[in-house]
Amino acid sequence: MKHVDIKKIFANVDEYVGKTIDVCGWVRTTRDSKNVSFVEINDGSCTNNLQIVVDKETMDIKVNTAFVIGCGVKVTGVIVASEMNKCEMQMASYQILGECPADYPLQKKRHSLEFLRTMPHLRVRTNTIMNVQRVRSALAAASHLYFQSNGYTYVHTPLITGNDCEGGGEVFRVTTQPWNAAAKTEEDYFAEDFFGKKAFLTVSGQLEGEVAAMALGKIYTFGPVFRAENSNTSRHVSEFWQVEPEVAFAELPDIIEIIEEYIKFIVGYVLENCSTEIDFFERFFEKGLRQKLELLTNSDFQVIEYTDAIELLKKAEGANFAFAPEWGAELQSEHERWLTEQIFKKPVFVINYPKDIKSFYMKQNDDGKTVAATDLLVPGIGELVGCSEREANYDKLVAAMEARGMDVSAYSQYLDLRKYGSVPHSGFGIGFDRLVMYVTGVSNIRDVLLYPRTPKELK
Amino acid sequence: MKHVDIKKIFANVDEYVGKTIDVCGWVRTTRDSKNVSFVEINDGSCTNNLQIVVDKETMDIKVNTAFVIGCGVKVTGVIVASEMNKCEMQMASYQILGECPADYPLQKKRHSLEFLRTMPHLRVRTNTIMNVQRVRSALAAASHLYFQSNGYTYVHTPLITGNDCEGGGEVFRVTTQPWNAAAKTEEDYFAEDFFGKKAFLTVSGQLEGEVAAMALGKIYTFGPVFRAENSNTSRHVSEFWQVEPEVAFAELPDIIEIIEEYIKFIVGYVLENCSTEIDFFERFFEKGLRQKLELLTNSDFQVIEYTDAIELLKKAEGANFAFAPEWGAELQSEHERWLTEQIFKKPVFVINYPKDIKSFYMKQNDDGKTVAATDLLVPGIGELVGCSEREANYDKLVAAMEARGMDVSAYSQYLDLRKYGSVPHSGFGIGFDRLVMYVTGVSNIRDVLLYPRTPKELK
Repeated sequence: MKHVDIKKIFANVDEYVGKTIDVCGWVRTTRDSKNVSFVEINDGSCTNNLQIVVDKETMDIKVNTAFVIGCGVKVTGVIVASEMNKCEMQMASYQILGECPADYPLQKKRHSLEFLRTMPHLRVRTNTIMNVQRVRSALAAASHLYFQSNGYTYVHTPLITGNDCEGGGEVFRVTTQPWNAAAKTEEDYFAEDFFGKKAFLTVSGQLEGEVAAMALGKIYTFGPVFRAENSNTSRHVSEFWQVEPEVAFAELPDIIEIIEEYIKFIVGYVLENCSTEIDFFERFFEKGLRQKLELLTNSDFQVIEYTDAIELLKKAEGANFAFAPEWGAELQSEHERWLTEQIFKKPVFVINYPKDIKSFYMKQNDDGKTVAATDLLVPGIGELVGCSEREANYDKLVAAMEARGMDVSAYSQYLDLRKYGSVPHSGFGIGFDRLVMYVTGVSNIRDVLLYPRTPKELK
Repeated sequence: MKHVDIKKIFANVDEYVGKTIDVCGWVRTTRDSKNVSFVEINDGSCTNNLQIVVDKETMDIKVNTAFVIGCGVKVTGVIVASEMNKCEMQMASYQILGECPADYPLQKKRHSLEFLRTMPHLRVRTNTIMNVQRVRSALAAASHLYFQSNGYTYVHTPLITGNDCEGGGEVFRVTTQPWNAAAKTEEDYFAEDFFGKKAFLTVSGQLEGEVAAMALGKIYTFGPVFRAENSNTSRHVSEFWQVEPEVAFAELPDIIEIIEEYIKFIVGYVLENCSTEIDFFERFFEKGLRQKLELLTNSDFQVIEYTDAIELLKKAEGANFAFAPEWGAELQSEHERWLTEQIFKKPVFVINYPKDIKSFYMKQNDDGKTVAATDLLVPGIGELVGCSEREANYDKLVAAMEARGMDVSAYSQYLDLRKYGSVPHSGFGIGFDRLVMYVTGVSNIRDVLLYPRTPKELK
């Protein structure tokens, strides 16, 4: 079915005006006036609908019955310039491709996001979800563009893993055993299972990402990870997408520069390529969204020591924190937002956290108290990126694992990286779905995923 | 650690000659001669090593003990032009970043791919696996580039699904239940499970891809899928990556055009951007590889009816097929290869297969016997892409499901797409790992994945 995408027409109005072309799409609205009627159609290529003008003098068509909302159509006509809409189409002929009966749940009126979640297969046809998906796609495209043009290799780390490294309680197990497998012992059960041993869904590609970076130098992952956390919040899902770059020969200050450049690049890309989508979110979801994103691309991100951040927070006037800031404790979300929104009013890297509140793999600083880790905090959300230089010293890494009571033998591959040609390296992780929330102002993670997976919900 | 990627130096030799810079990398070889010694280092950014020249007059260094193979180094020196190597570095100073003890399993001599598979965390440091990974990354980048620049939205379809649509025996189940959960009934067991019902790992994003295409028009997925098939062949793994575009308002001839354009684009991209990698594979893996790829980008793909293909195969002289070609039966790999390698000597789309050997969702042709499906066959491998126009008619789709004894009620969302604004649409799927095999000439799928997942193997 040869036809022209509506986005292409709006992007090249001069080229199409006066031309007779075919367009395809779904009917969004119809409107009847004295001599002409109007049908707006959308083909998913952009936020804009194309207005089809039906001349009632020459065509005996009742638009509201001929063009039912939701039906699929192909329309032939000439593109004409329009002051209000940039351009529209004077209809010459049309063909209904698929009807839409009256019980179609998405009629013209607005629906709540909660209601829309009950029908994931239809809600993607709403402006909100389509705009989210287009911004999501643009952020992904920009991420690949950034890393590829800077010499990174995209690697696919495994999803199924034998390592339940972040604690058995919060990982999904993968099995081909029937629910009532008649194994007598755990050993028998897993010997009979598909992989001949326990298998889990990964929570992070970092460890394998480090493996790849110790060969390819600069790598990034972009893929799904899983967490079987029984959380029902607006920020948690069980299956989400993550970007995890890992860079050899990069120390903490190097990776901080990379993060800043990357974040500015992808947000700048969205501002440039998804302007109508951002207008939509500005209008319906977050006042000041565009300004927030522009501020991010234009500001020099702040870097502050955790220790200094605690001091600033202790002196914060009018903050009324629920949790008193204290050296050695996690920064609470309220603290993070105070730093980035009230004190610095721009993105902030907090660096060198106390080692006891951070992971075993982070590089231990010479002070014996902190690790070379950083979180990037941004206004409106708090933590957006988690990052660290990795501990490259074999003995220090083993000591950190033992201090945490970990099973060192399960990490022999990871330790080999510190044995054979270990070099300084750093990496970061960004929750891609939360990034989409940040850039669109959509506040529930369930609305930035086509099919969100949460406890007791699997549609 | 400020330094310059080796790839950047080779790409801009004129700019760097005469400049003193830092490079980082891992030692690949050392060689001692009369007045100078040589150390080759690689940083993963490209196939080429940078040769470091050590002047023995001014530096009292035994390179084979100072620069042990596998160790991580940072070297400072001036870049000089070299006839043999384009450029090299005259060393001024160096720093060992990480030692490499003598038990390092990857010494200079070559290892078999089988042996290398026993250590996935180290084999990625070999030329073969690094080159595979760079080509893989380039194919992924090119895929995103193609679809993004043609107006497709990248969507993330879910990995965890409630639908075991392709048969319970070949899917992985996802659970948080302990191996010995004490449920009395199946119902109890799954009621207590994380999602409150049976959950599986998806085998394809197609159904959700169609959902998205019925709103966004043109979409593509690029993500992992899973198959719990107990196959131990060189072409099967349990976890692999797939690209699945889905296009609204596209009939079979339209999607065939898209596939041809896409395949030519990504292969052309690799020829342009991974020339040294292709040279490597030509030399060590597949004689004629470059010619094969160039032929693909330069030829007009053939389109042939399945019915005509069967006739041609029946007349094939000297073929000695193990299976006689017969209308109504699957094309065997030997048949596919004969068509593309012997008869047409270029890529071939076979179209309109008998409906009984194809899936329920494919558009039923008016002849009542065939469906609007196509496989793209390429020399050297056979089937590379599977594709079809989807059945857009509600009643015909239900009839096809019932004829196959499927549970129609499990597909209510999918059927809704045919109820509300159904339009012609088509899609295809390409196994990304097999594509990498095709483009590199690497013949075992285990060698194109960082951590291949196969029965009883989970490293």
